Amino acid sequence: MNEEIIRKVLSFRQKRNWEQFHNPKDLAISISIESSELLENFQWKSSEEAFSLNKDNIADELADVLIYSIYMAESLNLSIEELIQNKLKKNELKYPVEKAYGTKDKYTNL
Amino acid sequence: MNEEIIRKVLSFRQKRNWEQFHNPKDLAISISIESSELLENFQWKSSEEAFSLNKDNIADELADVLIYSIYMAESLNLSIEELIQNKLKKNELKYPVEKAYGTKDKYTNL
Amino acid sequence: MNEEIIRKVLSFRQKRNWEQFHNPKDLAISISIESSELLENFQWKSSEEAFSLNKDNIADELADVLIYSIYMAESLNLSIEELIQNKLKKNELKYPVEKAYGTKDKYTNL
Amino acid sequence: MNEEIIRKVLSFRQKRNWEQFHNPKDLAISISIESSELLENFQWKSSEEAFSLNKDNIADELADVLIYSIYMAESLNLSIEELIQNKLKKNELKYPVEKAYGTKDKYTNL
Repeated sequence: MNEEIIRKVLSFRQKRNWEQFHNPKDLAISISIESSELLENFQWKSSEEAFSLNKDNIADELADVLIYSIYMAESLNLSIEELIQNKLKKNELKYPVEKAYGTKDKYTNL
Repeated sequence: MNEEIIRKVLSFRQKRNWEQFHNPKDLAISISIESSELLENFQWKSSEEAFSLNKDNIADELADVLIYSIYMAESLNLSIEELIQNKLKKNELKYPVEKAYGTKDKYTNL
Repeated sequence: MNEEIIRKVLSFRQKRNWEQFHNPKDLAISISIESSELLENFQWKSSEEAFSLNKDNIADELADVLIYSIYMAESLNLSIEELIQNKLKKNELKYPVEKAYGTKDKYTNL
Repeated sequence: MNEEIIRKVLSFRQKRNWEQFHNPKDLAISISIESSELLENFQWKSSEEAFSLNKDNIADELADVLIYSIYMAESLNLSIEELIQNKLKKNELKYPVEKAYGTKDKYTNL
């Protein structure tokens, strides 16, 4: 992720003196809560209905998931890129193209 | 976010022909499920215990949250940076430094 | 809820000496995790596909949500019936039949 | 669960003609959303702080989890008691008292 945006996200928190509350357990809770608020936009709706009615709020809640994820990565002393890179490598092994192509099965069922 | 990592995440999906399953509603469900798997690492534990026992899994589940978030941003035709930038601006208004400094209250209670 | 089943659920925990871990915050986390495992059965699937493939697991995860909910009600010193009764009364006011009939709108939009 | 309360919960829905929206996938989403609203009461707080500040809302959100769980059980054509009874039997096998006593380990680690 762009260095500048990371710096802004961290600076937002620092200016408000909120690091004291941001222990990893409560950050994990917060990511879960925000992802649920994202999901609420789709409750009782198709994807199309949700996008046509709630697109701005969907963008905002997704941003909240990302912002808390940046704080969690900071707690782990890992960059967003490292995190994703490492996981993609594992996913390559769990979901080899020849087995996973066009199927939505979990790797345990491939 | 680094262009290259975004490309890798999108290419991982394309190679497996999974775009067909990735409608926004199921992506929102997936972000919520992964964030819950992240949280499971902290169940019955302090932050310290969780980090000392489960740090690798915490990193992996956080990466899954981020990977699905990248797919959702793609569905919205928005970059990760735009999303965060726009939300930070709103958060500046909801949580002005002079009111929000050192407090964990929700903006509705400030 | 049937007295006997409540007694069984509480006795299951007591025999294992687990009350020491069951603080309300971790119970709330646990309800959220189990509800996410319930939801996982529907990921990338229609309701019909999920029911035909995963009905037993859906029943089991729903049961886990209910079991932790019983522990949480116990922490609150409230019976399941009181809890539901009180909330139904509030919902009657938030969703009067004449306004809410046949609509999936949130009460804030009625 | 008390027959009368089940009848009230089902009648609340029927009077509003909401069965049409209550497919199992959206019910699972709803249980997850409500459990997250329950959890939000504990965000950045200890159990004690949360109970002293938010006890009424905790009770209300727990009730919402239970109400949607009743609708889901109805979709499964299972009683709440059967669901819990069946799961307790499985949990007895996964967590035998002699192995699980006083430990918070997952059954896969016992």
